Amino acid sequence: MIAECLKNVREKKPLIHNITNYVTVNDVANILLACGGSPIMADNPMEVEEITSICQGLNINIGTLQQHTVKSMFLAGKRAKELGHVVLFDPVGAGASRFRTEAALKLMREIPFDVIRGNISEIKTLANGSGCTRGVDASVSDRVTEQNLGEAVSFVKEFAKKTGSVIAVTGAIDLVADDRECYVIRNGRAEMGSITGTGCQLSGMMTAYLAANTEHLLEAAAAAVCAMGVAGEIAWQHLPVYGGNASYRNAIIDEICHLDEKTLTEYANYEIYK
Amino acid sequence: MIAECLKNVREKKPLIHNITNYVTVNDVANILLACGGSPIMADNPMEVEEITSICQGLNINIGTLQQHTVKSMFLAGKRAKELGHVVLFDPVGAGASRFRTEAALKLMREIPFDVIRGNISEIKTLANGSGCTRGVDASVSDRVTEQNLGEAVSFVKEFAKKTGSVIAVTGAIDLVADDRECYVIRNGRAEMGSITGTGCQLSGMMTAYLAANTEHLLEAAAAAVCAMGVAGEIAWQHLPVYGGNASYRNAIIDEICHLDEKTLTEYANYEIYK
Amino acid sequence: MIAECLKNVREKKPLIHNITNYVTVNDVANILLACGGSPIMADNPMEVEEITSICQGLNINIGTLQQHTVKSMFLAGKRAKELGHVVLFDPVGAGASRFRTEAALKLMREIPFDVIRGNISEIKTLANGSGCTRGVDASVSDRVTEQNLGEAVSFVKEFAKKTGSVIAVTGAIDLVADDRECYVIRNGRAEMGSITGTGCQLSGMMTAYLAANTEHLLEAAAAAVCAMGVAGEIAWQHLPVYGGNASYRNAIIDEICHLDEKTLTEYANYEIYK
Repeated sequence: MIAECLKNVREKKPLIHNITNYVTVNDVANILLACGGSPIMADNPMEVEEITSICQGLNINIGTLQQHTVKSMFLAGKRAKELGHVVLFDPVGAGASRFRTEAALKLMREIPFDVIRGNISEIKTLANGSGCTRGVDASVSDRVTEQNLGEAVSFVKEFAKKTGSVIAVTGAIDLVADDRECYVIRNGRAEMGSITGTGCQLSGMMTAYLAANTEHLLEAAAAAVCAMGVAGEIAWQHLPVYGGNASYRNAIIDEICHLDEKTLTEYANYEIYK
Repeated sequence: MIAECLKNVREKKPLIHNITNYVTVNDVANILLACGGSPIMADNPMEVEEITSICQGLNINIGTLQQHTVKSMFLAGKRAKELGHVVLFDPVGAGASRFRTEAALKLMREIPFDVIRGNISEIKTLANGSGCTRGVDASVSDRVTEQNLGEAVSFVKEFAKKTGSVIAVTGAIDLVADDRECYVIRNGRAEMGSITGTGCQLSGMMTAYLAANTEHLLEAAAAAVCAMGVAGEIAWQHLPVYGGNASYRNAIIDEICHLDEKTLTEYANYEIYK
Repeated sequence: MIAECLKNVREKKPLIHNITNYVTVNDVANILLACGGSPIMADNPMEVEEITSICQGLNINIGTLQQHTVKSMFLAGKRAKELGHVVLFDPVGAGASRFRTEAALKLMREIPFDVIRGNISEIKTLANGSGCTRGVDASVSDRVTEQNLGEAVSFVKEFAKKTGSVIAVTGAIDLVADDRECYVIRNGRAEMGSITGTGCQLSGMMTAYLAANTEHLLEAAAAAVCAMGVAGEIAWQHLPVYGGNASYRNAIIDEICHLDEKTLTEYANYEIYK
């Protein structure tokens, strides 16, 4: 099923509307092209409803939020849901300021997101209504580890039940859950954390996976997480000894270009917790 | 003449003012430096007239249009033309929303652009006053092919006549025309379409070519198209087997750094249709 | 001391708040991660005071200034200074428009910047209250050379005395001074000037160096300049023959990842003028 999800992205080439931050937007566009999707970026309230109408999925990311982009998120989010498009929410930095936290909570109240993807601190902020994030990274105290895994899985499934969304928490161990089951994924490398925007990139790519697999959103979200992690593992092998985070960023996107069903199936490392 | 245009960019090092989108802006700046020009990005209405005054050319790109950037485009465009600077227009996504289409048409009415560069769907939208674009990519039905080439050349020359601008339509086959003749260019590779912003990059670089060759705008525009395509061909040869769109993006800009008159002359593949 | 500064960044991993331009923002984030710091970008007046409170340093860059970002710079700058955080100012393009020059001068009047880093034309503009910048690059007539070095050192020390800030002027020869002494640094390569944003990247990284070495701001600023230059020298050696400015950009950030105390000490090339 994981491999099937990748295949469907390449076949259907979904066009994804992104309302996202200006820090990582170029990488989001390139990874969408790499995985087989097609990106369009538009965040002006004057056009977002129309733009999202010609797309198959919408990716909302609050990394550098402005008043006009918040407005666009509501307009595009509602329009996309009316049209039955998948909508993903990436609450970058929720918990780092009241403005972000409140915007995130308001978006969640008004738009029935298909998937919410963030780090554990961001997701806990959304679940608790307030939080404490170390900037855009997860707090150490929040991290999902082998020790607190059972508890973390329960929390994520519970939050999925409460919101009706698939919840994807990414970190050293990734959790992707709906209210019934949870993918526990152990792909990727710690060094991916030293690249800005791997989370944003994953959200962009995941929206393409969702748009190409609307009948299997949980599996599609998990497949995107596996694909990103596997690309991170293989790309690491191609880095020259003097490579660093800039080359690694490029190598991961490159590897997403090449990733095929066979490789994804072979490298994907996950368990399903019921 | 094509090679002469490249030489003039390297000698005159034109400073180019860019009012452009935040998706591909970094690549636009780097390719301008790579070709021998110098970039400055400024889109605040408070300063664009002054900024454009110290430059030799202006590149207007509507990829992520905001109200304040539209205002800046009018201000800078008019000032640049008063000063006799070359002004290029890249109507990214015209046809994808009424807002973009109308902004593009209004810009064309008020600013006598020296060159308009876009994909075929964007250019058709401008010619017809409305259109249907698949996001920021050309629609399949619009594409220029060997079969419809004669018709496409006539259309582009006609539109050049109507607007008084040089028209550059880029795709698998590129057309660069004024009302008298049309360069039909067959450089580049299909894989360039899997990189975000090769069109924006070309527009930035083309503005430098225009600014350094003000007496030969048609040839300068054609030379920039050839240069981009040739760089794409040579860069492809340098890609390692596991390279993908991220590395290819870098390799093309790198190749623009190295491109010399001899190589451009040798690889440029074009015919001139009268 | 230079090497000690680098070590402290890696140990303390300072979180740096950046209000910066959208052209080079991604590279600024990646170089901050590469050097051992952690970046957060936020420029909305609704949240900047809160965001800066959870950080250890603030980097203000006027590369693409908007009304709302100017407001955010004042709010965040004042808050950061109240909290005793280091604040760096990068006056990109000061002198290129009255709007930028005046915004820069007003920021300097209201925020006691710890460090001001720019090219010589930008710094002269701030010192004289008006100026003439060739876009975002220094004017040839302003450049620091072996011939005018003594005069340039005096000017920079004088400006440091007048402002109470450490002044970092970067170019072929770099000067980093307070009112007592001046580091004259000869690291780096001319080819770094063909990459967009090496200055912005340096400012971001320098803020991390300052935040991790609050007792030694002059040395920390000088250490960051040496680190950038040394990375530029070593990265050049790793470039393949067909590498250009795009690959060089990545290679420099990569090298910042790998740079250790021993290498920095060995390659740092500076004299201290009293």
